[in-house]
Amino acid sequence: MMRTHEAGSLGAGHAGQSVTLAGWVARRRDHGGVIFIDLRDASGVAQVVFREGEMAERAHRLRAEFCIRVTGEIVRRPEGNENPEIATGAIEVTATELEVLSESAPLPFPLDEHLEVGEDIRLRHRYLDLRRADPSRIIRMRSEANRLARRVLEEHRFVEVETPTMTRSTPEGARDFLIPARLQPGSWYALPQSPQLFKQLLMVGGLERYYQIARCYRDEDFRADRQPEFTQLDVEMSFVDSDDVIEVSEGIMARLWSELADHEIPRPIPRISYAEAMARYGSDKPDLRFGVELTELTEYFSETPFRVFQAPYVGAVVMPGGADQPRRQLDAWQEWAKQRGAKGLAYVLVGSDGTLSGPVAKNLSESEREELAKTVGASPGDCVFFAAGPRSSSRALLGAVRLEIGRHCGLIDHDAWSFVWVVDAPMFEAAADTDDVAVGSSRWTAVHHPFTAPNEEWAESFEQDPANALANAYDLVCNGNEIGGGSIRIHRTEMQERVFEVLGISEEQAKDKFGFLLEAFKYGPPPHGGVAFGWDRICMLLADAESLREVIAFPKSGGGFDPLTGAPAPITREQRKEAGVDAKPATPKEDSISVEPQGMVEKQG
Amino acid sequence: MMRTHEAGSLGAGHAGQSVTLAGWVARRRDHGGVIFIDLRDASGVAQVVFREGEMAERAHRLRAEFCIRVTGEIVRRPEGNENPEIATGAIEVTATELEVLSESAPLPFPLDEHLEVGEDIRLRHRYLDLRRADPSRIIRMRSEANRLARRVLEEHRFVEVETPTMTRSTPEGARDFLIPARLQPGSWYALPQSPQLFKQLLMVGGLERYYQIARCYRDEDFRADRQPEFTQLDVEMSFVDSDDVIEVSEGIMARLWSELADHEIPRPIPRISYAEAMARYGSDKPDLRFGVELTELTEYFSETPFRVFQAPYVGAVVMPGGADQPRRQLDAWQEWAKQRGAKGLAYVLVGSDGTLSGPVAKNLSESEREELAKTVGASPGDCVFFAAGPRSSSRALLGAVRLEIGRHCGLIDHDAWSFVWVVDAPMFEAAADTDDVAVGSSRWTAVHHPFTAPNEEWAESFEQDPANALANAYDLVCNGNEIGGGSIRIHRTEMQERVFEVLGISEEQAKDKFGFLLEAFKYGPPPHGGVAFGWDRICMLLADAESLREVIAFPKSGGGFDPLTGAPAPITREQRKEAGVDAKPATPKEDSISVEPQGMVEKQG
Repeated sequence: MMRTHEAGSLGAGHAGQSVTLAGWVARRRDHGGVIFIDLRDASGVAQVVFREGEMAERAHRLRAEFCIRVTGEIVRRPEGNENPEIATGAIEVTATELEVLSESAPLPFPLDEHLEVGEDIRLRHRYLDLRRADPSRIIRMRSEANRLARRVLEEHRFVEVETPTMTRSTPEGARDFLIPARLQPGSWYALPQSPQLFKQLLMVGGLERYYQIARCYRDEDFRADRQPEFTQLDVEMSFVDSDDVIEVSEGIMARLWSELADHEIPRPIPRISYAEAMARYGSDKPDLRFGVELTELTEYFSETPFRVFQAPYVGAVVMPGGADQPRRQLDAWQEWAKQRGAKGLAYVLVGSDGTLSGPVAKNLSESEREELAKTVGASPGDCVFFAAGPRSSSRALLGAVRLEIGRHCGLIDHDAWSFVWVVDAPMFEAAADTDDVAVGSSRWTAVHHPFTAPNEEWAESFEQDPANALANAYDLVCNGNEIGGGSIRIHRTEMQERVFEVLGISEEQAKDKFGFLLEAFKYGPPPHGGVAFGWDRICMLLADAESLREVIAFPKSGGGFDPLTGAPAPITREQRKEAGVDAKPATPKEDSISVEPQGMVEKQG
Repeated sequence: MMRTHEAGSLGAGHAGQSVTLAGWVARRRDHGGVIFIDLRDASGVAQVVFREGEMAERAHRLRAEFCIRVTGEIVRRPEGNENPEIATGAIEVTATELEVLSESAPLPFPLDEHLEVGEDIRLRHRYLDLRRADPSRIIRMRSEANRLARRVLEEHRFVEVETPTMTRSTPEGARDFLIPARLQPGSWYALPQSPQLFKQLLMVGGLERYYQIARCYRDEDFRADRQPEFTQLDVEMSFVDSDDVIEVSEGIMARLWSELADHEIPRPIPRISYAEAMARYGSDKPDLRFGVELTELTEYFSETPFRVFQAPYVGAVVMPGGADQPRRQLDAWQEWAKQRGAKGLAYVLVGSDGTLSGPVAKNLSESEREELAKTVGASPGDCVFFAAGPRSSSRALLGAVRLEIGRHCGLIDHDAWSFVWVVDAPMFEAAADTDDVAVGSSRWTAVHHPFTAPNEEWAESFEQDPANALANAYDLVCNGNEIGGGSIRIHRTEMQERVFEVLGISEEQAKDKFGFLLEAFKYGPPPHGGVAFGWDRICMLLADAESLREVIAFPKSGGGFDPLTGAPAPITREQRKEAGVDAKPATPKEDSISVEPQGMVEKQG
């Protein structure tokens, strides 16, 4: 090693020792010929003083982020000069030797704690950004999160298995990234959207307990906070029911939050059914850090004279103190709702004397006005927002209003943690209601993936009422973020065939799309189930970071562009030719391998 | 859990207990109406007995690899019926309940220990193959290897960082796999051949200690035992010299071999210079489990009348007892040498009375004959093989002969482990001598990669004698396999420019090829170095497996084909269109981004 000590490890106990340090010039101050350097390495910062004439002279050329090696003696700082803000603040190093290991050009941005420059320039020089305290802390914390999760899984005797990333294009929730196969021109590999199929194959293989911190790939339109490659903690178990998977999951989460966020998650983590979550919070990932709930008013308004409320569903959510909002604020709510695709956002203001006002109030019957505040739990001074129309979209609107209320009114305790399992989600949804392209040709598509088992209650009857059939699935929600999800899988051929029938997947299509998994299931597949955690999002929450990009060492920015390396980039004609991009497949059976993207991946945040 | 106990955990202590087991029917025997089942789960095997009429009847339909759940009572086996070959051989389970969890079709191959079927059918049904004892053991052992290596690195406070796998095509030792970028049509990502550039950027970022068990990708022609995707344990450190990297490396290897192969590696692992390895063993990855060495005879034959030995290099290697070989065996050696591209393989047989025979002997002068056996260390009854010609290819031939001798003569102890560091490798090799395409335009190309530092001795003078300049590099060899390699990197711009000059890389080319790394190096890069281990190969050695495919859960077979999923496969017209495969890049600057493959990756076995 080029040093004897790490800068951050020095303390008063080292006084009198000669040490050699290596690191970066974080700060340089000249005090009348004496030069002070804050020397930073991975362990922390120590102050180095260049006192004597020649040393001070040599130190004079040091600039920010020069990489240096310094030998000197540890001395206690003179009384009154201690710096209690840094761990090494009791001492300083009187330099006797200085070696410049490398110089630094002027920085594109200062490496301060609070940085004003745009993210793009930070990512372009991510290697400088990572020298800053917070990015460095986050990357190190992520490494700890990996370690802790693995430790829990090792304690449960899980086996880590690396699954292939150059594989077959399979029907999952999004588009696949594709790779031309030079040695089989005209054929392509796909990057996996998850290890879903392989982990199920490992269960067929008798592994019983699998995990992997797995790289996954989805070629989506990069909205806001999406990355083309992301990481999930992937788990699968045999001979289990959902309680077993949930227990292991909670063990991992509890360890992570205890060690990294100093928070003991109360266990068991509460469970709420999907139906209840939608009814009470208008969301399948409710943020339970605050208590505002939806009230269904369909029955209440069943005789209403107000046309707008003559709807299959009417619901409301109360904004505490919202009656005080100025008119333009109430208009802004309308605008906000329209941007979400709603027609508007009906509201009633509850005056301090309990009288209702606002454009909706006068359309209600007197009896409706009378009991309204009580029914929705509004107090004088509150605002009541309404949604009326189809049940699902109206609830979603109210769920979003609820979150806005939480933010606007400061109801969310940002130091709080709220975990909840959302269980008993529907097995199927109408193909028309999803962005995913359906696997099959029926009007139903799988909410999770086509291998998700029904829950016990629906095992014999899901095909009779697909709209209401419930899956044996569980999603973990933290502070309104879906951070994990999984299910018990179907392991009986007969049941799988019934699900395919609901989805409108013919035997031939099934063989084309997931033939190798179905083949495997002929040979005594065990009952199994699993879970996948959105690792980037979990690390983001643990690190209190503002975006997924903060927890990724070298993230992509919008559009999947890497500001640092400039990827993606054009390739040469020669590369293109050699890769066989333009070759025709030897046996052109395009139709028979046709694969449509659809939701078959373990859902995660 | 669907079971109360794991089959392999049962012993005499459980006698009298009622247990529920779940697993697979490994074997079924009918003994006069009583049915015996070997029930196998991940933990082991237990014998289940179906005694009573009805139970026996129901058990009658069980077939190999049915997945079942059994409840029953643990009873000690009658005296004399114990099976000491299995851990649970003292007991059996008297079944009182049986549930068939899933049935199995007739197997494509029996799941026996010693399997006669071809690898292709095993890989096509890898999920069945993995139920066999040995494949299962190997996959579990690999998980343990990961755990142990991480443990050592955590003890040294290394930080695990995931680096991108969708990145920029960079010039390394092989072709890149490419991925079209749908959102930037005409541009492509590349899969990384190693995290080399990113780990160096992390050092610039002040991380100081990085590791990753990293997936890497190389689009090579799949000779023998290559996989398009493979794994390396990747390590990089700052403020270190080669001794520091070697020490950490040895710590990892020692832990692995101690825990998984019950072998304590003597430390420090010996080091041998590249020059010495080539001179004594004719190989840069010498197998030191046996002692046969090359003898250089260039000087000895400096006056020789024998035309063939009038060469820049003459060397010999002795085959103990080889004088007894029948003529056709000696002919087979010739054939073998020719297949390696040599003209033949000269030899001399040393008779039991010390006289030399064979076609070469009579061409030598009497004085040459006289001292030959003594000079090369041959005894009566030995055979001496010769190579004459260019130094490098002649030594390589003798090195290969040496290995053949080791095998033929049973000199290799297959239970032995021999580790050696090969250090002081050349910095440069003639571009004409390598399969890799040179990065630059000069006659020299980098042996490791263009960022490898010269060793101290050559720091100031490597450009004056590129043929002999030595790198600060180190490769770890185990039993003749290169299992890891690394180097100290160049961190000074001035030295980097001098290396580029030797390689014939212009400033402009350098900017095109590794511009982002050179840009990073402007900002106080620390001295750093690292190592990468061929993780698949290490696991193969530890597991005593016969090929890399055995240590990969779902390997590719020849040509990069996956027999299980059928990847790669044709894609649909629609996928092709959507992926933007045929789009022209927005700014066609093909020439300026032209990137040639060359050796820039951390070498590993």
